[in-house]
Amino acid sequence: MKILLTNDDGIYAEGLCALYEILSLDHEIYVVAPESERSAVGHAITINQPLRVTKIKRGNFFWGYAINGTPADCVKLAIYELVGPVDLVVSGINKGANVGINLLYSGTVSAATEAKMLGYSSISVSIDAYENVDYYFAAYFTSIFINYIFKLPLNSPFCLNINIPHMNPHKIKGIKYVKQSTAKLKEFFDKRLDLHGKIYYWQGAKEHTEIDPETDVIALKEGYITITPIQFDLTNYSLLNILKQVKDKLFINF
Amino acid sequence: MKILLTNDDGIYAEGLCALYEILSLDHEIYVVAPESERSAVGHAITINQPLRVTKIKRGNFFWGYAINGTPADCVKLAIYELVGPVDLVVSGINKGANVGINLLYSGTVSAATEAKMLGYSSISVSIDAYENVDYYFAAYFTSIFINYIFKLPLNSPFCLNINIPHMNPHKIKGIKYVKQSTAKLKEFFDKRLDLHGKIYYWQGAKEHTEIDPETDVIALKEGYITITPIQFDLTNYSLLNILKQVKDKLFINF
Repeated sequence: MKILLTNDDGIYAEGLCALYEILSLDHEIYVVAPESERSAVGHAITINQPLRVTKIKRGNFFWGYAINGTPADCVKLAIYELVGPVDLVVSGINKGANVGINLLYSGTVSAATEAKMLGYSSISVSIDAYENVDYYFAAYFTSIFINYIFKLPLNSPFCLNINIPHMNPHKIKGIKYVKQSTAKLKEFFDKRLDLHGKIYYWQGAKEHTEIDPETDVIALKEGYITITPIQFDLTNYSLLNILKQVKDKLFINF
Repeated sequence: MKILLTNDDGIYAEGLCALYEILSLDHEIYVVAPESERSAVGHAITINQPLRVTKIKRGNFFWGYAINGTPADCVKLAIYELVGPVDLVVSGINKGANVGINLLYSGTVSAATEAKMLGYSSISVSIDAYENVDYYFAAYFTSIFINYIFKLPLNSPFCLNINIPHMNPHKIKGIKYVKQSTAKLKEFFDKRLDLHGKIYYWQGAKEHTEIDPETDVIALKEGYITITPIQFDLTNYSLLNILKQVKDKLFINF
């Protein structure tokens, strides 16, 4: 298959290299990724400055295209200009899990969502660790999963968000198909003073408040590989129906 | 009511001023907005650099807090540190419509979504024009709508995305509650050469391919004020059910 690789940790990130090494054994791989880290950019796109493309080599070997933009920019530019149609877009492997409402902030997930918006199947992969990360089991799993999912009789392009626990693979409990948690994060701002006595804030999050085991947050914590199919219709249909049926309509004499 | 105003066009934007002028007649208004334009930032948040807060005055009058961050950052920092709990968050008035899959890219909408994620009712307001924009009818409509929606017996916080046609109000056909269009945008990259002969790209979009009149895209084009309730569960439940029920499970001997 023809596979586009991207990420939000930047084109030199270890997680992308690991995916490249494993997936290129069986597939034709194209890399189009941000030139530097673009974490937590959400589904940002770059419309107020021009995008630049830099060809990256490793030794004499062409590695891919680095873009001065976001993960979503990379997918668009790859499909429309640099690579053309592909069979699959894979985004990752992200350092750090992407579960719960963090999906809204995630550059990794937004690249997969963007691919689906353009009509292509996509997978985002994240690993639940920040330090001393070993990406190879996650890359190996991704490779096996790709072979599996393309054999299923799915009718239309899919977009799947995969999270992998960072532990000895023998201890992983299995694979769980789960919904995204929408529970609140415990967030905080750390208020500090700079050397001139001026205030600045670091934004942080402690943990999810989720307790439902059928969510990505809890299943991952319990040691499962979590797989969540993603869509991009933000309509709240239940509230839409309520508002449509309200008898006391707002009347404005335009 | 205690209302937090924000936007993605920056704290000095005309659309925000118009909302302030109209809403402050009836409500207690707090402004926390990006120090400069942050369009198309999606639901980005700032985690890799500190956030700074600047108090903005207009003459001797305290106007609000400018933040070196995204619309979502502004909402979080306002609620957690600068303003505290509010009755409503209003984001806008954005210059340019926010309909269809542009909702995924919109900083204006993401501020309202963020408010809902934190448990607060919210409204994002955009006007379908880029040049010679008259914001006052849109601000007036927002004010009337706020009074209306809080009288309805809704059980939980709401998040509503409002788009207003830019035309003589007498020509507006009415209010339509509609879903978000998920149809593709016609997009393109304009490839140019700089003064050194190096390639750069401008990213652009022509139009939506939507035809369904019960969507925000078409209803707005037809001259209706569109109102779309927003949620932030990205789970594709139909595909989730299919994957859960697949008989040929992926078996890995972990």
